[in-house]
This record gives sequence, C-alpha cells and structure tokens, in this order.
Amino acid sequence: MTSKAADLLLSDALVVTMNALGEIIPQGAVVIQGRDIVAVGPSEAIRGEWQAAEVVDCRGMVILPGLVNAHSHAPMSLLRGLADDLRLDVWLFGYMLPVEREFVSPAFCRWGTWLSCAEMIRSGITCFADMYYFEHEVAQAAAQVGMRAVCAETIMKWPTPDAENFDEGLAHCREFIEAWQGHPLVIPAVGPHAPETSTLELLRGAAQLAAEYDAPLLIHLAETAGGVEETRALFGVSPVEALERAGVLNGRVTAAHCVHLTEEDRAILARYGVGVAHNPTSNLKLASGVADVVALLRAGIPVGLGTDGQASNNDQDLFEEMRLAALLPKGLHQDPTALPARQALTMATIGGARALGMDHLIGSLEPGKRADLALVALDEVHHVPRFDLSPDNLYSQLVYTAKSHDVRHVMIDGRWVMRDSQLLTVDEDQVRAEAQRIATQVGAFLSRREQSLLDKLVALGTLQWTETYEVQVKVGIQDEEALVNRLLSCPEVMVLKQSERKQYDTYFLFANAEADIIRYREDYLLDRGLEVRPNYSLTLRGPTVEREYADSVLLSRSRFTAAADRSLRFYREYFQPQEERRVDKIRRRWRIKYQGVDFAVNLDRLIQPPAPGGESYLEIKARTWSKQDAMQKAEMISELLSVLAVDKARLVRDEYVSF
Amino acid sequence: MTSKAADLLLSDALVVTMNALGEIIPQGAVVIQGRDIVAVGPSEAIRGEWQAAEVVDCRGMVILPGLVNAHSHAPMSLLRGLADDLRLDVWLFGYMLPVEREFVSPAFCRWGTWLSCAEMIRSGITCFADMYYFEHEVAQAAAQVGMRAVCAETIMKWPTPDAENFDEGLAHCREFIEAWQGHPLVIPAVGPHAPETSTLELLRGAAQLAAEYDAPLLIHLAETAGGVEETRALFGVSPVEALERAGVLNGRVTAAHCVHLTEEDRAILARYGVGVAHNPTSNLKLASGVADVVALLRAGIPVGLGTDGQASNNDQDLFEEMRLAALLPKGLHQDPTALPARQALTMATIGGARALGMDHLIGSLEPGKRADLALVALDEVHHVPRFDLSPDNLYSQLVYTAKSHDVRHVMIDGRWVMRDSQLLTVDEDQVRAEAQRIATQVGAFLSRREQSLLDKLVALGTLQWTETYEVQVKVGIQDEEALVNRLLSCPEVMVLKQSERKQYDTYFLFANAEADIIRYREDYLLDRGLEVRPNYSLTLRGPTVEREYADSVLLSRSRFTAAADRSLRFYREYFQPQEERRVDKIRRRWRIKYQGVDFAVNLDRLIQPPAPGGESYLEIKARTWSKQDAMQKAEMISELLSVLAVDKARLVRDEYVSF
Repeated sequence: MTSKAADLLLSDALVVTMNALGEIIPQGAVVIQGRDIVAVGPSEAIRGEWQAAEVVDCRGMVILPGLVNAHSHAPMSLLRGLADDLRLDVWLFGYMLPVEREFVSPAFCRWGTWLSCAEMIRSGITCFADMYYFEHEVAQAAAQVGMRAVCAETIMKWPTPDAENFDEGLAHCREFIEAWQGHPLVIPAVGPHAPETSTLELLRGAAQLAAEYDAPLLIHLAETAGGVEETRALFGVSPVEALERAGVLNGRVTAAHCVHLTEEDRAILARYGVGVAHNPTSNLKLASGVADVVALLRAGIPVGLGTDGQASNNDQDLFEEMRLAALLPKGLHQDPTALPARQALTMATIGGARALGMDHLIGSLEPGKRADLALVALDEVHHVPRFDLSPDNLYSQLVYTAKSHDVRHVMIDGRWVMRDSQLLTVDEDQVRAEAQRIATQVGAFLSRREQSLLDKLVALGTLQWTETYEVQVKVGIQDEEALVNRLLSCPEVMVLKQSERKQYDTYFLFANAEADIIRYREDYLLDRGLEVRPNYSLTLRGPTVEREYADSVLLSRSRFTAAADRSLRFYREYFQPQEERRVDKIRRRWRIKYQGVDFAVNLDRLIQPPAPGGESYLEIKARTWSKQDAMQKAEMISELLSVLAVDKARLVRDEYVSF
Repeated sequence: MTSKAADLLLSDALVVTMNALGEIIPQGAVVIQGRDIVAVGPSEAIRGEWQAAEVVDCRGMVILPGLVNAHSHAPMSLLRGLADDLRLDVWLFGYMLPVEREFVSPAFCRWGTWLSCAEMIRSGITCFADMYYFEHEVAQAAAQVGMRAVCAETIMKWPTPDAENFDEGLAHCREFIEAWQGHPLVIPAVGPHAPETSTLELLRGAAQLAAEYDAPLLIHLAETAGGVEETRALFGVSPVEALERAGVLNGRVTAAHCVHLTEEDRAILARYGVGVAHNPTSNLKLASGVADVVALLRAGIPVGLGTDGQASNNDQDLFEEMRLAALLPKGLHQDPTALPARQALTMATIGGARALGMDHLIGSLEPGKRADLALVALDEVHHVPRFDLSPDNLYSQLVYTAKSHDVRHVMIDGRWVMRDSQLLTVDEDQVRAEAQRIATQVGAFLSRREQSLLDKLVALGTLQWTETYEVQVKVGIQDEEALVNRLLSCPEVMVLKQSERKQYDTYFLFANAEADIIRYREDYLLDRGLEVRPNYSLTLRGPTVEREYADSVLLSRSRFTAAADRSLRFYREYFQPQEERRVDKIRRRWRIKYQGVDFAVNLDRLIQPPAPGGESYLEIKARTWSKQDAMQKAEMISELLSVLAVDKARLVRDEYVSF
C-alpha cells in the first residue's frame, strides 16, 4: 500500500471532532495539506495511510475545531475597562459615543483589531464576526495576522466615524465588499447596525447590497427592551418583523443578541434560516437581559457564541462565554439539564459556523474543511482528576474547567499562528505599546472633560448650546395682584406674551473652583391649573454675579442652555454632582417691552423649599451682549422697580437654589 | 531617624488595600514581620521608615489581600467532572451519595484537600471555609500546605461516611474542635449540614457545641426551593426561622447559598449578624437559582464568595466567581449599576472575611492583620490597555478581565506558598498522581455499575430490594363476568382479598445482553371508580421466561421489586433506557387459596395500548422458591384454567409490554 502525502500530521491527540456524530477519537490524528484538513481518524490507521512532511506528537493535548466568535467589535479592545458598571445610556452616550467621535480612525481600528486578534488567538478563537467602522482596516489587520473573519461595515441612520449619512455608509460598504470578495480569509459583509438605528430605506438598501454580492449581513437584533420599543415606535412591528418586511431576512443573516424575542419572532428567524450570535457576558453586563437560548435551539435556529466588544465584556475569551452559556439556562429555567456542556461547546464551534453560514468551511474537524484548530493542554491542576465514563466527561471538562490559558497552539487555514503560547503573526509588544498610547490619549481626553463641566456637556455632542448673559433683579413682594395691575396698567409697558407655568428645577452643585451649577428644568405650561406641554432644559452657569449695579441689579456670567434630550437620571449619573437641590415653583411670566426694550417679568411662588415668610418674588430680566448694553438695561430695571412701586428693602441677591 | 526592622518589604506595587477607605496606593509597599503586616503605604515613605531583611521589587504587580473562599468542600476535588448536567436528585442520589458511601475515607479527604489547596493557591485564595467528613484530615492537609481554613465537621441526621448517626457526628465534631482550637491557621467549626437534613435535636446540639467552644458554625441554608419546602414540612417554618428557633443563630454563623429567602428571613439574618457565602456558579449549575445578593447587602448582611465543591462548579477559581457575582445582578435586576466591580472584589476579600467573622485577622491589607496576600500580574494581553481615570478602572480590570492565571505569587501567614507560579508547599506531581489514582477507582466503580442494572439499583442504596420467582399464565377471555362467577363459585377456591386497581406501568427497555426490563408502576386502588391511595413500585427483571410448562405456564426468572421512593423522571434520567413503553390497565385482583395454595388472579382490561380484539386477560400467578415447587404450582395453574373453563387456544405468552 502506498501512502498518501501531506504537509502535516498531528498525532496521538484527543481529537474532539464536533462532527455530526459527535465523534471523539482518543488516540486521534489530524492530517493537513495546504490549508485543508485531509484526514481525521485514529492515529495508528492514519499513520499507516499518510506520509507527512512533518509529524507533531500531540500527546496530552485536545485538538478542537478553532473556536468561532460570532459577534465582536474588534477595534473596541482599545476601550476595554474605560467605563463599566454604568447604565446603558450613560455608558453609550456619555462615554462610548463621545470617545468614538473623537478617536475612531483607520489607525485606531487597525491597532485595536491587532490587539483583539492577539487576545482571540490566545483563547483559541480562529474566526470572528466583526461590525465596526473603517472595516477595511479591520479586514486588513485580520488578514495580516492570518485570522479568519466576517467583516461588516457598520451603517447607521446617524453620522458615524466614517460616514456622514447612511447613503455614504452604503457606498463605503459596497466598495469594501468589492475590495475583499474572494479573499481566502476575510468575508466582507453588510452591517446595518440595528433596526432601531436604521430607517426602512437603510434596511432595504443594506438587504439589496447584500443580495447583489451574495454577502452575509450582520445586525444587532432585540438586544435591549428599550431598542425593541424604539423599533415598535418606528416601524409599528417587532424588530424581527421589521427586518422581514424590509426584505433583510431573505439574505444570509446573522443576528447578534436576540434577548427580547417573542415566540413568533423565533418562528420567523427559523423560517428564514437566520443565525443568532449569543453574547451572555455582554448581555448581563449591560443589563440587557438573558437570551433564551433553549427556546432558540428548540426553534431550530443555529446559535453561535460571541464575546461582543471588550468595552462590554471585558475580554475576548470564548471559554468564559461557553461556561456562562451553559450555566445561565440551568439557573434561569431551574433545570440543570437545560443546556449541557456539549451543547455549549457546539455553539462555540460548529454552531457558530452554522450561525455565520460557514459550516461547509469550518466549525468541525472533518476532511475537506479548512485547518482551523485549537490545541488545548489538560495538564494544569484544575484538570485533575479526569473521568472517562462517557464523552460528557470531556465536554464537561472543556466547558466547566478549561480556561483560555490552556490553549497552547493555534492553527488557522493550515498556518500556525500560535505555538507554545507564542504568537507568530502579531508583534505583540508593538501592538501593546500602540494600544496603550491610544488609550492614554483617550484617558487624557476624558480627564480633561471631567475637569470642565462645559467640556462634559459639549462631549454629549447632540445638544445645541446657546451662550447668554443676563441682567436681572429679584425682590420679595406681598401683594401679587396689586403688582400685576400696576404692571399691566403702566403706559410704557407693552405685554408681548403671558403664561403661567410650573417649574421643577433640579440643581447639580459641584465642588470645583468655578463653582459651576447645572440646572435641569422641567417646565410645564399651566392651562387653567393643568400641567401641559412639558419642556426640558439643561443650563450650565458659572458663579452668578459678574457685576452688580444699583438696586441689586446683577449681571450674570455666561450661561449655556439647551433642550435636555435625556433624563434627569442620565445627567445625574453622567455629571456625578457633589450635591443636588430641588426648587419647585409656580411662575407667572410676561414678556414685555418697556420703552421699546425686551424684558421678562416673572412672578414666582415657591412651593419647595417654601419662601421665607411665604412671600412671592418678582424677577425682571433682560438678555444682554455688551457692558454698555448691560449698564443701560440695569438702569431701566431700576426704573421699572420704581414704576412698579416695589419695596426696595426687599431686594434679594440670592438665587432660589441658595435659599 | 532610625528605621524599624522587618522581615520583608514588598515595594513599588499597585497596592489594593480593601481597607475601610478603599485606598489604592499606586507606588505602594507592604511590610511584613513574622506572620503579620506591619505597614502599608507609599513605597518611598515606607522605605524611609523601614529596614527589611529582604526587599522584593513588585513593579507591574497588584498586591491584593489573599482571596477568601467562603464555602467549599475541598475533598470533592476528586469528583470534579464526574457527573454534570444532571438533575439535582440524579446527581446527588444517583452519583454523589453512592460514590461518597463507597469511597470517602481519611485518605480520600487528605488527597482531595491537597488537590484543592493547590488549585486554590494558584487562583490567589489564601483562606477557605470547608464542610466535609473526616474534617481532621482536611484540617491537617490545609495546615501542612500552610493554608488558612475554617474547617467544619459535617453532621447530618442520616449516616455519613464518618458517623453512623448524628450523636456520633456531634461527638466527632467535639473531638475535632478540641484537637484544633488555637491552631495558627486552622479554625475548627461545627457543620450541621442543612436544616432539612437535620432534626431539632441535631441543630440544638450543634448550636450548644459551637457555643461551648465559641467555635464558628457553618451550614447550608435555603440552597434549593425543594430544601425550603422540606424544611417547612419538618419544622413548620422557613429554614432561617428554624435555625433561629433552634438557637443556632446566636452563634458565629456563616450560611452558604441563601438562594431562597424572604424579606423577613433576611431581616433575621441581619439581626443576628449571620454571614452569607454566595456561590453563583454552583447555584446556577445545579439549577438552584440565583441568590439576591443586592437584597442581602442592602439588609446589611456580610456577604462573601464561595466556589462550593468541584463536583458542582467545577473548579476553585474565585476570579470566575467574582465576575459572575458582578454580572448576574445586572442582568437579573436589569440594572448595570446593581453590583459594581468594587463590590464584587469586596465580597472576595474583606466581605468574605466578615462573613466568616475573621475581618480582624484577614481580608484587607492593613497593619496588624495577617500577611495573606496575592500578587497579580497585569502583563498579559487581556490587560491591555489600562485606564486610570478613577479607582473603578482598576476594580473593573481585576473583576472583569483578570484571570486566576494572572496570580503569580501567594503568601499566607507571612510565608510564601507560591512564587513565580510554582507551588512551594505542595508536591503537586504526587497530589495529581494520587488524585488520578483514586478517581480511576471511582470511574471503575461507576463503569461496573453501568454494566448491570441491578448494581445501579443497589447503588441507589436507600431501597429495600426483594427478589422473587413467579410461575404464571395469561389467557385472553371474552366474558369477564361469567369467568368471575365461575371463580367465585368454585368450591376449591377461597378468596382472601379482592380489589380493583388502575395501574399505569412504564417499562424501560435496554439494549444490554441480559435484556433487562425495569418497570415503574403507579398503582391506584379504585374505590367506586375513584383512584385512591397510589402505590409506586420499581421492578427489575431479566428475560421473562426461565422455563415453560404445559399450557404456556411460565417460570419467570428472578425479579427485584421495591417501593419507588423517587419519581419516574428520576429513574428515567438515572437509568437512561434505550426505549420506554407505557401500559395502562384496569386490574381486578383476587388473592385466593386454591387447594390450600396461594395464587393471585388478575382480570386485566388494557386501556393503553388497546388489547387486540378488545378482549380482557386473565392472569394466574404464584410466587415460587424451587424448581420442584414451581413445577407443582404450574400444574395447579393448568387445573385452575380448566376449572375456569377458559379457551386454551387463547393462551398468550407475550407480556403486555410486548403487545
């Protein structure tokens, strides 16, 4: 018998094939020719049949199919540990988006991807699915390292770091696909971010683009309850139904997360053969919830495991995901048989390959598939003792006991990328140094931001800020109606607008040198006593008094005001004030012209804290732009006080917040 | 200024003190004299003040207080990965208890503890709380390794591997405490297993014993919903209230698990200052649930982290427990701020010390405390990059990113037990070899058991088995009432007992050579058509026919029958039959004497599967003990068939299960 020739024979390993029969070969061998596996079987038989240029003795090692990371954002490694244990909106809008706006660049994506690749290879991952910006850089970095990757250029209805709008995003994505299609390692894909961050046109465009090139489409789906609500508000249906209607599901789709699905949603996903990437750590850490993997699997949906980006995990360790994926359903369904170890390992290998539509190429050790392998040593003390009653003992050991550190050698596409825990295709020292350099810049940016409330406001980005100066006076009064009569009967006063409002103000006080104050105001127009049309605003101001004129008329320094598009809770967690005070009041407000100049006249009744003596307050204010203008308006305010016959002994310099 | 003398100065580390102020010292030093920490502070200041015999440069290292494993069963390391993903009862009664009955010995506990100590030290654990049998061996092994431990001799109302009854258990425990009290490392403790496995006397005895020696008391508490129900059935109150009534809570108590508590239970625990050991992995893996740690902490209860034994985890890795403890509350309470990283690290250090009543000794890096330290390197790629915006960045890194493998040096009581990942006080090779030797015996025992259903039945242990032989005949009949009349009117037949029953039989069929069949029977006495008094039995039998006599009278081989004290589901998961069949029938049954010999006469109407032709069946049976006796009874059965005028053409050899 003549033997067949091959490049490499890995002999005498415990070969965990993850093939359809679930075969485990105790003294097994894997034969590799070029980039392919050409034979798998018992070592003795294989050695009789094959003549390899190199034979590697793998005694004491488990050979696993390379692990498949079905969802990640590789460049986000650079933001690992930057901001944790924060509420999703604070984390996203307060940290991730501002930092991404400032820092995400081609270089950022390149170095971040290299760092992630180093980490992934160390934990036995040979293929990852990615969604980020400048995806060309991600693809290039992965290809240079020799990692297999499905790379999706992310498209959103909002501006992103690499596209002003989604038309530009789709165009970039098209160029990206054209540049990478047919690459031996990188599969370019279309990445509409999520239903709630898309428009119908965006989704349709993405689906068409994917169809045109027969490219995979990656998307976040039903990650958070809030996102599902937003989708319903936008499209009137569930996120899954929204994708179905937009024609997205006709393609080769892998949906990440799928935490908040209905039974009907699952039926739709199953019908279209959509794959799901389950990210248990990220979903717990961001408090999104726990995907019902048991229900997904029961519906016949291919499920893989993802790490998500390091900003929400905080590592790329699929052994941790396997363990958590196996543990969670047990506790939550109160059934220890809910998701056995073998099923968890399946999700990390062939299941992930299936979810990405790549099971013809990778995910199991079978002749004809690519040589993507992870060799795991079972030699550390946490692997003692070992039982061999059934294959389940080994699956159990790989899922509940093995750690990423147990991975010793990794091969991708027939090429060693790690031997004896040494990375062969990444200059780890350089990557680490560059990563730290970028992270240090990010840290400095955030530190600066922390030092100035204004920078912190500006970093929120979406707000439009207006800077104003004001001259104003405040005075206690007893008889409101008499004063109102004098105001309305004064011939030199013309009332432009009148309203009554209820204002709930929350002041954030800080210990900084500038004595900045932030005011969050809920301002309700009162219509016959009923609160209607709330208006939310956020105001930053420095110490009140810039200058004082006669009659306690004050010139207040610059203040910045904008509509507040997030909740009080968000701002509280974002700004972390030293102290917080509430002032509630009823305000009657007149916009008047006095001698042709605009003023605002407020009559305030404090509800909380109650005013000393229960009196009301009159405020007269005017915006101003120059010292000259300010002085002139201050004089006019003094005049008005006389016209209104207020008791100047009752002039008040303090603001309500200081009462 | 003269400097003070010390043995050792660890300099230039990132010192995470976990003291009351939560201080982190960036360029910090820890000074050790004998077994104590004598100073902690900035390196420069410390070096000016102290003159140490040895100075170790710890640049790039984090010094943490040694981690505290607040709940474990160290010897169970030898059962790691033996049987996973099984329902609690199958796992416990099918595997753990039979194996423990067979194997747990002083040597088992010694080697198992050494193995656990090796693993714990490698993951930075310096102190563990233990509950097992032969606790003297556990204590001795820990002391030899130089680990700090709270060791509780376990006491149950049932026989245990080291005590016939709980009086003996309490007596052992007393001797154990006397032998170990005052030891520098080992604190002996009392370990009543759990409320539901105790009697009131046992709990009182344990409480008194603990009080007498001022010894800690460790107990499992409200681990499973089933256990809580059992406790309520036994004591009429919740497990916490049961302990309170028995006086247990007056002592220094640490309760493991606390998954199923009421608000009132938590208030009681808080009132008595009881500490809790939270075991997130074990509770998920055994599907017990998830302890509401946030509620425990809010109630002011000291909470530590435990790994539980390796049989239910499957390792002793407190970094994994920290991460899971931080992740779970976020996902479950849908609040990413529910349990911040710093709180998780607190639970693994000073929180665990508090839960064990040892916070005056260990849990933080402070002068006057014991020198129990873990030095963690942040040099691997998963620690890149690092941010330094607030202490939270470091806590985040230690909890979400650090792995047990990052621990490089460990000191306990002022003595190095690991340097550069080399264990100094355990002969790891020997421990591994011995552990594997014992595990191989356990594996062989279970393999043998798997080969014989009878062995597997016997391994369940609590059942009382009866072996019987039977002669029997079965014949199809059309007119039931006519036959009954003939039976009752026959002068040689005396009816002893008569009943009507409904029997739901489930047959487990196996592919083994013996063609064993197991029958699980639910047998309801029918009272005017109503099903009353169910009776559950389990029967094992070999192939039916041992011998055949005239008229198809069969001698069936030995059968083993016992009351079935577990559910059908349990037996199904335990025996894992190839196939399962159901037979439901109504049986009219007469116990008769025919010519002075006992027979059973059954008239069966099959409900499911329906009988061919819808006929009923007559069975006549007798127990037998010898071939001679069997032959004689077979002849009498033939006679009876004639007396009852049955149609012998309708004799049936098959059993209902084979219809």
